[in-house]
Amino acid sequence: MKATVHVFLKPGVLDVQGKAVENALHGLGWSGVSGVRVGRVIEFDVAADSKAAAEAQVKAMCEKLLANTVIEGYRAEVA
Amino acid sequence: MKATVHVFLKPGVLDVQGKAVENALHGLGWSGVSGVRVGRVIEFDVAADSKAAAEAQVKAMCEKLLANTVIEGYRAEVA
Repeated sequence: MKATVHVFLKPGVLDVQGKAVENALHGLGWSGVSGVRVGRVIEFDVAADSKAAAEAQVKAMCEKLLANTVIEGYRAEVA
Repeated sequence: MKATVHVFLKPGVLDVQGKAVENALHGLGWSGVSGVRVGRVIEFDVAADSKAAAEAQVKAMCEKLLANTVIEGYRAEVA
């Protein structure tokens, strides 16, 4: 089954990479851009008997490895 | 308007970060995981008169700054 995980910094956490991208876009003339947030996407195949089992596995992976849950939130989808 | 840009390495390009994540997941006992690809997501607000205008702006941003089109592909959505 195909899993897609989005990892983003939590709303209160300063996103320096996002700020850098925003400044660069402003510098290139796109002054209408605001609120830039940069995150990661992780896509992979996971072997599981059911969608529920795959979702449980992916959630555990996120908590253990894929996201730093102190400062990051994640959204996992299994299809 | 809210824009979301996904940036991934092109299929032929070795994804070392993905390989590292895959090896780490195998090491933690998830041997059923394969084909891990790691990409970036960039979310931002863009000021534009119409959805088409916003899409054109976002496409130009991707080509100029957000993606390295030599080795990366991108998918842009405006909502």
